Amino acid sequence: MPTYTPPLRDMQFVLHEVFNVVEELKVCPPHAEVDADTINAVLEEGGKFAAEVAFPLNLSGDQEGCTLDKATHEVKAPKGFKEAYKTYIEGGWPALSCDPEYGGQGLPFVVNQAFYEMLNSANQAWTMYPGLSHGAYECLHAHGTEAQKKLYLPKLVSGEWTGTMCLTEPHCGTDLGLLRTKAEPQPDGTYKLTGQKIFISAGEHDLAENIVHLVLARLPDAPQGSKGISLFLVPKFHVKADGSLGERNGIYCGGIEHKMGIHGNATCQMILDGAVGTLVGQPNKGLQAMFVMMNAARLGVGNQSVGLTEVAFQNALAYAKDRIQMRSLSGAKAKDKPADPIIVHPDVRKMLLTAKAYAEGGRALLTFCALLLDKELHHPDEKVRQDSADLLALLTPIAKAFLTDNGFEATNHCLQVFGGHGYIKEWGMEQYVRDARINMIYEGTNTVQSLDLLGRKVLANNGATLKKFGKLVAALVEEEGVNEKMAEFINPLAYLGEQMTKFTTEIGFRGFQNPDEVGAAAVPYLRVAGHLVFGYFFARMASVALKAIAAGSTDPFYTAKLQTARFYFAKLFPETATLMRVARAGSQVLMDTDAALA
Amino acid sequence: MPTYTPPLRDMQFVLHEVFNVVEELKVCPPHAEVDADTINAVLEEGGKFAAEVAFPLNLSGDQEGCTLDKATHEVKAPKGFKEAYKTYIEGGWPALSCDPEYGGQGLPFVVNQAFYEMLNSANQAWTMYPGLSHGAYECLHAHGTEAQKKLYLPKLVSGEWTGTMCLTEPHCGTDLGLLRTKAEPQPDGTYKLTGQKIFISAGEHDLAENIVHLVLARLPDAPQGSKGISLFLVPKFHVKADGSLGERNGIYCGGIEHKMGIHGNATCQMILDGAVGTLVGQPNKGLQAMFVMMNAARLGVGNQSVGLTEVAFQNALAYAKDRIQMRSLSGAKAKDKPADPIIVHPDVRKMLLTAKAYAEGGRALLTFCALLLDKELHHPDEKVRQDSADLLALLTPIAKAFLTDNGFEATNHCLQVFGGHGYIKEWGMEQYVRDARINMIYEGTNTVQSLDLLGRKVLANNGATLKKFGKLVAALVEEEGVNEKMAEFINPLAYLGEQMTKFTTEIGFRGFQNPDEVGAAAVPYLRVAGHLVFGYFFARMASVALKAIAAGSTDPFYTAKLQTARFYFAKLFPETATLMRVARAGSQVLMDTDAALA
Repeated sequence: MPTYTPPLRDMQFVLHEVFNVVEELKVCPPHAEVDADTINAVLEEGGKFAAEVAFPLNLSGDQEGCTLDKATHEVKAPKGFKEAYKTYIEGGWPALSCDPEYGGQGLPFVVNQAFYEMLNSANQAWTMYPGLSHGAYECLHAHGTEAQKKLYLPKLVSGEWTGTMCLTEPHCGTDLGLLRTKAEPQPDGTYKLTGQKIFISAGEHDLAENIVHLVLARLPDAPQGSKGISLFLVPKFHVKADGSLGERNGIYCGGIEHKMGIHGNATCQMILDGAVGTLVGQPNKGLQAMFVMMNAARLGVGNQSVGLTEVAFQNALAYAKDRIQMRSLSGAKAKDKPADPIIVHPDVRKMLLTAKAYAEGGRALLTFCALLLDKELHHPDEKVRQDSADLLALLTPIAKAFLTDNGFEATNHCLQVFGGHGYIKEWGMEQYVRDARINMIYEGTNTVQSLDLLGRKVLANNGATLKKFGKLVAALVEEEGVNEKMAEFINPLAYLGEQMTKFTTEIGFRGFQNPDEVGAAAVPYLRVAGHLVFGYFFARMASVALKAIAAGSTDPFYTAKLQTARFYFAKLFPETATLMRVARAGSQVLMDTDAALA
Repeated sequence: MPTYTPPLRDMQFVLHEVFNVVEELKVCPPHAEVDADTINAVLEEGGKFAAEVAFPLNLSGDQEGCTLDKATHEVKAPKGFKEAYKTYIEGGWPALSCDPEYGGQGLPFVVNQAFYEMLNSANQAWTMYPGLSHGAYECLHAHGTEAQKKLYLPKLVSGEWTGTMCLTEPHCGTDLGLLRTKAEPQPDGTYKLTGQKIFISAGEHDLAENIVHLVLARLPDAPQGSKGISLFLVPKFHVKADGSLGERNGIYCGGIEHKMGIHGNATCQMILDGAVGTLVGQPNKGLQAMFVMMNAARLGVGNQSVGLTEVAFQNALAYAKDRIQMRSLSGAKAKDKPADPIIVHPDVRKMLLTAKAYAEGGRALLTFCALLLDKELHHPDEKVRQDSADLLALLTPIAKAFLTDNGFEATNHCLQVFGGHGYIKEWGMEQYVRDARINMIYEGTNTVQSLDLLGRKVLANNGATLKKFGKLVAALVEEEGVNEKMAEFINPLAYLGEQMTKFTTEIGFRGFQNPDEVGAAAVPYLRVAGHLVFGYFFARMASVALKAIAAGSTDPFYTAKLQTARFYFAKLFPETATLMRVARAGSQVLMDTDAALA
């Protein structure tokens, strides 16, 4: 059975020592009073919930899965999920970063995100129930009418009700422009929705008394394609004016999927059979409204993979120290034992360090993103808000795709450390791999993320946003370039920074001549960008660690951080060499293959 | 539901046009009469068995799994497995490449292997039952006493009985030197075995009336470690002198594992409770005897991944042509439809072509290996036998590790092509990923394979065997270097061939000073070697295709082969750039990390 210890020390390092979030957010009116002690105390308590309540249900939830009663259309989550959710709402956790106007605690998003990393480590499938609710909260908070907000937000903030996002249909996933669900206006200003949605996470379950579905559908005479999609709020039970529950609405679960992983979360086919809904935002502008939710969800998916990487790493590390097998190539290390612990083997260390570096790099990137979101929402200076929004838009597809690809690789390495035992369910490692696999797909496949990055976020504005990130890199290089101890980190980073500009220009030029060049380059491009970002954060973290050591700290944490950064630059960062070659190899060898793909 | 079509055309291409197996084997007495028509007819029939009998049980076998009756210790394979096995032995398939002296059909191993690729595509879990039997046959054929051979081989050849290899124990997998199962000599010349084995594939099941276990155990007073291990034949039911079954022997299944994949194959904990066995080979030389079986098994595992890659590719290709979603970046292609089939997108093509290239490269490598094995066993010239054995020893860890890493990557790409549907069990793609995952672990983890390659097969003889392969590469470069049409294939191959020599010398030099450098370099080294080998075979295949086209063939197969080779060199081969950097980054950044891995 796996174990889990919340990585509080590393979270504190990233939040306070690297990004100085308290200072950064002091100027934001809602967060002026937030201090480090509060953040640390919240995360410590949150870590206890994750480790003690959500984590023990992870393996059993995977084994049991969800069950649908076809007669009543009701879904039961695995044993213990409902009780854990009750504890969760009693603890006030859904309210953590919500608006105090609706009962929220008003803490910055950056705190909520660190909390969610721990929940994801503990139990990704369970965490998706509150996670999707939070997404629905964000969307309604940004786009709901006053009436909708008054009626629904307090219940989402308290966690009494949960939420979903109903986008996908059988014939359309990525291409939402194809969707067919219809919304007919009613004389009373409501709409009747008819259609079928699939892959609706947490679409039906027994954790909460009501479920608030946010549903994309078409109005009559709506334009074709993605410009004719509107967003509707469709509750499972109608809600009366006083907030109490009314009749059952015509939206129900027609089936649940049998999946590779995240068995504890009900992935539902949802039937809308004249379900009554109200419009959210403007008619035909549903996609824009939904994108608030999707962007947050993309960071959330990256966070799922960081969580899985962390817990998989912890368990693989413990196993590698405990399991004895063969001798070290450089001579026996545990001479009192019949063999050495497998952590003596260089490749075992490489697998472990890969997971560690990906967890820590991912944590840094997500913390930076969350801080950007807090600034985008609340910073008093409009330019800061805009810059934050731009940078966040640039980094979001990287956080989604790079972190989830890394998470799949890392959890696989951790499984491998266990040898044959990694393949056996009771050890828990193979579940991390299966759960991590979906993160590369949902909320926009990683290919879609790469097109979003290269096409929309980089080339569409001639690299202007990328240059904003490039300035951060250049500033660090400038500041630390003279520090000899930083050379091993700064030199490769500076080199890639320069390369990236040329590389982007080159791809842009090719793409101008042939758009398929963009499609051919996008996936390797995103990974190069991911390493630029990771390189920047690892260099910053190394700088902080070196300063702490120079100031006399003997905390081995700083030495550990330097070792991880050194490993990262030596063993993972060089992936960029191949990636750039592959991107430069162009589209023709892909497109001129009709015989091979006949 | 997935579909499967045996890739007979590509098999014929590799067997006859690339490797010319009939001509090559003509000098081997047992194969002097084998002709291409026979081989093709056998594979056509074998493909029917795979596609029509084994394949339809794959998804259902995964869903149902195996069940153990704890009272009787009997295991039931999934529904239909037993009947399929009956059809299999009625068809005479177990005998395909077995010795005619024991009822075999005496076909070369290279034919059996092509047949097995199709079985693995169809149903890896089912195929492991006959696959392990064949391994037991090989081992007994090479090391059994005359009495053992007479009594057991005919039944293994007919398939009436199946076999296993019982190596692993709870505390020892890779490190068999630690094993504890005891064998006590009895006055009648037999041995009584006591101990516990785990992870025994096909250890117990209802497909055959008897199971022949080959068990590693220690004799009393045996030397410690791997030099004190002997091999025993332990039947499930005792066998009387006339071949009929006697009493139940004291070896039984104590539990079956719940695994990530290959659910249809029973992975058993086997209890030996005074089980009676007979010695196979010499006392304390059990590992050597078992290695006959293990080397064949390692090729077999590579073949499992090639099979999974092929079937996953076929299904992903069909889906990519059928599923419409978004428009091509370079303008709508299916203007009559609301969106284009996703095969228009460059990255979808890249995922598909990666799988195709890995399947075809793997097929070529395994065919070459199988041919080497046939020559090692039967070639009249001793030098050819020795050269074949040496080359095969070099290529075996590459075939195991490179092909299974590729297979996992490829099946994952194929799953990804399906988007969210890839994650749903009924589409069958996620099963391929789960099944493929074990191949990186069993029969020696891929890290162990890399140490075997770099340490034992390359450095231990100062690269002598590697040079033998290098000569093949050099000969092709010499032969085709002047052919302008081959330049795109030959130039990168020649470059890597030169690099490889320097690279090997460098790693060897470092390893001489610090053995951990070998451990740190081994995994990337193996992948570089894998690409050298694939590059060589893709160049050979391209050469054959170009010659066919030059000779006037209009078969699109040859164009397809050139496109795949071109893709391979442009998009996959450049991985070597990063791999060499990573290997050269050395061991210190891995070993000097005690704080990071505290």
